[in-house]
Amino acid sequence: MKRIVLGFFIVVALTAQLFAVSIDRVEPQFWWVGMKNPNLQLMVHGENLAGSQVHLEYPGVTLEGVTQVENPNYLFIDLEISEEAKPGTFQMIFTQGKRDRQAYTYELKARKANSETRMGFNSSDVIYLITPDRFVNGDPNNDELAGMKEKPNRADKDGRHGGDIRGIINSLDYLHDLGFTAVWLNPVLENNMTQVSYHGYSTTDFYKVDPRYGSNEEYQELSEELKKRDMKLIMDMIFNHCGSEHWWMDDMPMSDWINHYPDYKITSHRRTVHQDPNASEADRKAMVDGWFVPTMPDLNQENPFMATYLIQNSIWWIEYVGLEGIRQDTWPYPDKHMMADWTARVLEEYPNFNIVGEEWSMNPAIVSYWQKGKQNADGYHCSLPSLMDFPVQNAASRAMNHEESWDKGLIELYEALSNDFLYPDAGNLVVFPDNHDMSRFYTQVGEDISSLKLGLAFFLTTRGIPQIFYGTEVLMSNPGTDDHGIIRSDFPGGWAGDAVNAFTGEGLSAEQKDLQDYLRTIQNWRKEKDVIHTGKLMHFVPEDGLYVYFRYNQNETVMVVLNKNEEEQVLKTNRFHEVMEGSVSGTEIIHSKEIKDLSSIAVPARSAMIIELK
Amino acid sequence: MKRIVLGFFIVVALTAQLFAVSIDRVEPQFWWVGMKNPNLQLMVHGENLAGSQVHLEYPGVTLEGVTQVENPNYLFIDLEISEEAKPGTFQMIFTQGKRDRQAYTYELKARKANSETRMGFNSSDVIYLITPDRFVNGDPNNDELAGMKEKPNRADKDGRHGGDIRGIINSLDYLHDLGFTAVWLNPVLENNMTQVSYHGYSTTDFYKVDPRYGSNEEYQELSEELKKRDMKLIMDMIFNHCGSEHWWMDDMPMSDWINHYPDYKITSHRRTVHQDPNASEADRKAMVDGWFVPTMPDLNQENPFMATYLIQNSIWWIEYVGLEGIRQDTWPYPDKHMMADWTARVLEEYPNFNIVGEEWSMNPAIVSYWQKGKQNADGYHCSLPSLMDFPVQNAASRAMNHEESWDKGLIELYEALSNDFLYPDAGNLVVFPDNHDMSRFYTQVGEDISSLKLGLAFFLTTRGIPQIFYGTEVLMSNPGTDDHGIIRSDFPGGWAGDAVNAFTGEGLSAEQKDLQDYLRTIQNWRKEKDVIHTGKLMHFVPEDGLYVYFRYNQNETVMVVLNKNEEEQVLKTNRFHEVMEGSVSGTEIIHSKEIKDLSSIAVPARSAMIIELK
Repeated sequence: MKRIVLGFFIVVALTAQLFAVSIDRVEPQFWWVGMKNPNLQLMVHGENLAGSQVHLEYPGVTLEGVTQVENPNYLFIDLEISEEAKPGTFQMIFTQGKRDRQAYTYELKARKANSETRMGFNSSDVIYLITPDRFVNGDPNNDELAGMKEKPNRADKDGRHGGDIRGIINSLDYLHDLGFTAVWLNPVLENNMTQVSYHGYSTTDFYKVDPRYGSNEEYQELSEELKKRDMKLIMDMIFNHCGSEHWWMDDMPMSDWINHYPDYKITSHRRTVHQDPNASEADRKAMVDGWFVPTMPDLNQENPFMATYLIQNSIWWIEYVGLEGIRQDTWPYPDKHMMADWTARVLEEYPNFNIVGEEWSMNPAIVSYWQKGKQNADGYHCSLPSLMDFPVQNAASRAMNHEESWDKGLIELYEALSNDFLYPDAGNLVVFPDNHDMSRFYTQVGEDISSLKLGLAFFLTTRGIPQIFYGTEVLMSNPGTDDHGIIRSDFPGGWAGDAVNAFTGEGLSAEQKDLQDYLRTIQNWRKEKDVIHTGKLMHFVPEDGLYVYFRYNQNETVMVVLNKNEEEQVLKTNRFHEVMEGSVSGTEIIHSKEIKDLSSIAVPARSAMIIELK
Repeated sequence: MKRIVLGFFIVVALTAQLFAVSIDRVEPQFWWVGMKNPNLQLMVHGENLAGSQVHLEYPGVTLEGVTQVENPNYLFIDLEISEEAKPGTFQMIFTQGKRDRQAYTYELKARKANSETRMGFNSSDVIYLITPDRFVNGDPNNDELAGMKEKPNRADKDGRHGGDIRGIINSLDYLHDLGFTAVWLNPVLENNMTQVSYHGYSTTDFYKVDPRYGSNEEYQELSEELKKRDMKLIMDMIFNHCGSEHWWMDDMPMSDWINHYPDYKITSHRRTVHQDPNASEADRKAMVDGWFVPTMPDLNQENPFMATYLIQNSIWWIEYVGLEGIRQDTWPYPDKHMMADWTARVLEEYPNFNIVGEEWSMNPAIVSYWQKGKQNADGYHCSLPSLMDFPVQNAASRAMNHEESWDKGLIELYEALSNDFLYPDAGNLVVFPDNHDMSRFYTQVGEDISSLKLGLAFFLTTRGIPQIFYGTEVLMSNPGTDDHGIIRSDFPGGWAGDAVNAFTGEGLSAEQKDLQDYLRTIQNWRKEKDVIHTGKLMHFVPEDGLYVYFRYNQNETVMVVLNKNEEEQVLKTNRFHEVMEGSVSGTEIIHSKEIKDLSSIAVPARSAMIIELK
């Protein structure tokens, strides 16, 4: 990367300045006083900014430097905002020579109360994952908008269907009633791509909600409405790439802004290069610098301006919207050192915040490498608090599908959890039966409702933070295909005129209603159960198609029994005495039944029991 | 465990002593002066030893204590042997009351020169694994012996066939010529069991070579003959269990000498309990305290007398025979804290020694837990230097058998090695295509010679210490079965009158001779190649059915190419420039061919190339 750093008192060449100073973007567009880190780097874009002198005066704000880069249309301005700075606006004066001068008004806002100490999502939560385009169309007026390249087409499985933030706001009472306490939306930032833009993973503006989902203000409103219900908001972010229609693709600040640009090279997807001491540098670069797909240019996070841009962008959204968490896409694809810096920076600003990374590996040694507190052999430290627990997701699916044998079936789930020793904090992993990128769990288990219910009982009671994909509660499925457009089908009741409506119950089958009740019961019970949130886990080697485990703390013990058999089983409990500690009776919470004698328990065929011990 | 510790000046009850002092065993039967650790605990067995007073006088030897245990037929005598003690013998006087007195002469030997600093087996070695009963019958006179319960029966696949230590001694020139530098024998201690005793894993006397294999002195002779050839001896030890016909089973020192005794309970074999933070104590005990099989009583290593007995026994064999290594059976089955103590104790006495443990898990996180230097989350530290690399064994087999695809074939081998970050010292793992407990690799790969040769080239050039099972060099196989008796068939030429003789070449097919040559070439080349022993490994993501990796150090670089394709491949090498560093030519060592232009290499179909770069 070639760049020229210019000091504050810039000596501008006195040769004729032929171009006017014209600023079209300053990002972040505003900032806050009272942040932990006093530094702020503004990316200023306009025509021929190179050579500009910058001047500002504001108490507590110091102009630390102005950096001119390869492309004269950019300036990077470093400010230091001291503790003394008060909220308000100031003018930045850009001058070129004697003739040209432009003022840009910048605002420093006041932070909301307790912004720094906000509590991130955690194991007390159950997260509802929503693909915004496919959930509820709350505002049909924003489906088709001038300037948005892709128009709505509900008939196209890969098209935009019209779901939006207003729809999600309208659904919060329903989600709250079901016992969900957090929502994670697939990305909501502008994706002004020509096609297949509904998924949101091709950002074309890092500071703007896609207007087809709503405005930045509506996103803020969603956050406020969630807080009213004691619910949390998790934003999906992508640091690895942007969309090929991103505004800067036509006018990049530096030649190394995008990896391989203007060429295109696909990533190798060989993610072990990060951990493998035997990996070659060639393979590391092939993985990290390669593009995800041709429409997703690979951002170069090794460029410090890019790194700062992304870090500030994430903090801007946390502060602006009032987020309680971030889900970071494609975790191992960006530069890992920048990602470590990012996590440290976010946690410096918000020590109780949570971030979950997507490392889609079945190898828990690979996944755990990234978690905060892990002592890695290569000395790498990351402050990422949480990861998606793909190994346990996969094991749960196999556990349900495989016939019981020495090494298949429930033992696969047991063995997956045995690997918890690899994680500094297994209790902060996000556990999930499925997500937007894989077949729905109901489909994975052959559309067997009892398998789905066993799986859901497991995910809602094991260690970690459960996450449920929208529509699971009404048996949404993707039979015979794993096409993403089908997996992310429209939620019933989200569109005017839907024959089936999950919100009102209209048209739902008995099985669908039963599953809503099942989740409502477990999730609302779970809300207040510290022992499920933070209690220890003790599990026992599965025997006879029964997997038994306990969550326990000083005050409470909960026993969970998963019976995979086609028949009722009578479970003798003497094997569990070390954790039952003489408990003789309990309450089964799914069916709200008292159990008077725990010495042997009749466990119904193919079902879960969740028993509070007395 | 109940026991009564009696001081040196024992006050013997003056009630009538009705029984004579009669000693039939003192173990260890002798010891050495000049050991690092001055302590020695003698297990003394005889009739009614309880209540005996013990007296000895020898310069530098102190009687620290005499312990009487539940069974009056045992005494445990603790000695301290100071640095001043000289080699020689002394008398231990046992007296009971005034009438009874017996003297027992005990010897302290001088250690051999450089005993402490002996170099254990390491990555400069190639180990030949021998099942002694099935290799060479060097002394037909010891096949059938009075007092040995099982008689020879070569017709029985599970019977004793007559192989012995003399036969191994006779074969050393053959093995040396093939380039092997170490032998690991399946256990050679007495297994005086009624049936299926040939495998040696049911010890009936921890201090005595099975006379059907030879004597303790012949075992010593084997060690000396190996040393003459710069070869090393690795002893197979089993701390987890003994044979049900062990002499102490009729007269146990303490009721907790054997777990569950006199009941029998099989182990759960759920080995993850050691690592799993969620495991129950009940499952831990079910794993550790259970028996391997009904004929193998499970030793209780938590009993400190048992622990000391086993530790001293191992040191006795190292010192007596002159071992360069130990292979420890069923690693995770004994008490893990005692095993940690044991490894520390052996390395205290022999700092350059090596021990390899058998943790038969495909999960490298589980395997690596045991290796010396591993920082485990639960604080467990073990000083075990080496482990059997079962994950890589399994991956190599899959790599050869699976058709190449995104996640199958050579990528499985690549990914297995990617997990090296889990090991403190992956270079000290024992790598092997097969062993005595699994189908022979040649059978695993469908008796495809090219797959076998690719696999062997891999194991002989990747990081670690290669181990080859006897008979591999003449294509021994176990088609259609994985019966252990068949896997461990008789080595051709080991018995007088064998029609095929691997030693002389008589009756060998061209393919068998070719494989002997193949191993001879690679292994003798490997002997002097520091870069293969201790060089770094760099591998590249397999592409187009080619797996390319390099071993390199400051002075040398070796390139290995495995071509799984049915056709010759032309390999462009620019991808490897970071490790080739401008090398333009090289020598392929299998066929001893010069390669003048390394920029693109013609790699023959289904074969390996090992190229020394210039």
